[in-house]
Amino acid sequence: MTIRTIEVREKVMARNDELAAEVRKRLSAHHVGALNLVSAPGSGKTLLLERTLERLGDELSLAVIAGDVQTQNDADRLARHTDRLVQAVVTHGGCHLDARQVLVALEALDLQATDLVFIENVGNLVCPASWDLGETAKVVVFSVTEGEDKPLKYPKMFQQARYAVLNKIDLLPHVPFDLDLAVHHAHAVNADLRFFLTSALTGEGIEEWCDFVRACARSALPV
Amino acid sequence: MTIRTIEVREKVMARNDELAAEVRKRLSAHHVGALNLVSAPGSGKTLLLERTLERLGDELSLAVIAGDVQTQNDADRLARHTDRLVQAVVTHGGCHLDARQVLVALEALDLQATDLVFIENVGNLVCPASWDLGETAKVVVFSVTEGEDKPLKYPKMFQQARYAVLNKIDLLPHVPFDLDLAVHHAHAVNADLRFFLTSALTGEGIEEWCDFVRACARSALPV
Repeated sequence: MTIRTIEVREKVMARNDELAAEVRKRLSAHHVGALNLVSAPGSGKTLLLERTLERLGDELSLAVIAGDVQTQNDADRLARHTDRLVQAVVTHGGCHLDARQVLVALEALDLQATDLVFIENVGNLVCPASWDLGETAKVVVFSVTEGEDKPLKYPKMFQQARYAVLNKIDLLPHVPFDLDLAVHHAHAVNADLRFFLTSALTGEGIEEWCDFVRACARSALPV
Repeated sequence: MTIRTIEVREKVMARNDELAAEVRKRLSAHHVGALNLVSAPGSGKTLLLERTLERLGDELSLAVIAGDVQTQNDADRLARHTDRLVQAVVTHGGCHLDARQVLVALEALDLQATDLVFIENVGNLVCPASWDLGETAKVVVFSVTEGEDKPLKYPKMFQQARYAVLNKIDLLPHVPFDLDLAVHHAHAVNADLRFFLTSALTGEGIEEWCDFVRACARSALPV
């Protein structure tokens, strides 16, 4: 049974990779990049995107595909900050987004009029690491309340990501969290990981993050 | 392929349920209860268990099975607080513990000399909800930094749990978190959920939690 499970899983993953390639092709045809935001539940992905849309919504045409296990709460929150379509994908118990769901969501977006697509994945530090969505890059978001050891305990996610947002830095005075150690652990599993330190709540660090988003929108390639 | 995937998944789950029944039988034969702690990464499960072992380690014989995707960090942290065996289970990328892993871990425990088993599951609010480990009850741990809507966004976990620990209440003055609303949301998906409010960091609420653990150890049934 184990071998059969692995076989089926390999076929599902292979099919996902084909669909991810299709996503990548469509995005590329319109010179549009896509950032896949992955994190544990409650790390602040949605608030980070709200701040991003607030600051850049008039300047850039940013589309969002918001995945959730249940509810469209995140998509509803984001829709308040943009006139652009926010595509909600409810996985109904599924622990990650897959490329098929992204491909369907893309159908509803006018890619010709889009500068950059954000994909807000399901809150889960394990499973989304294994699924290529056709994104330009994965951005792992974690927060100072989660402990410094998360990169060591969930290495695949930090290896798959090209960028890391360490969020909720406004709470640093109130939590036992060693910032340097967290960055050290992250670089131990992925030496190339580029960090952004933010507080989506207070706005600290959001300007540098927005500069990065601007660069992604301009070049369709993360810098 | 989708149908085949579902078939294989159903067989895997059915086999897990058989093994969970075996776990339950073994625990029951020794009148030992097991609490399966489930949460998102970084909610404070390990520190809660450290505090529990500190306070009750001399009074009760508490065993721990600590699951992690990678590293034995949690098991090592816990082992500092107890002379009892802490069984580390590394899932090597697996997003949840399964009953087979618990059954193997139980082999190493002297159940005759055990009052209560804690199972610290992989940090993941999605997948562990679907896996019966033969536990007496699931305890969902979440924290005030994660937002009030987590019970609505991850309803299965809050439905499967009989107890909820809302941790990090020391941070309440520093985060925009409506405690009543969070409890309201949790009871909307599971009206019977009993709450513990704790700060594993400062020790607030830990005494009430320890009274509950004592009761579980005495009766082998959560009260």
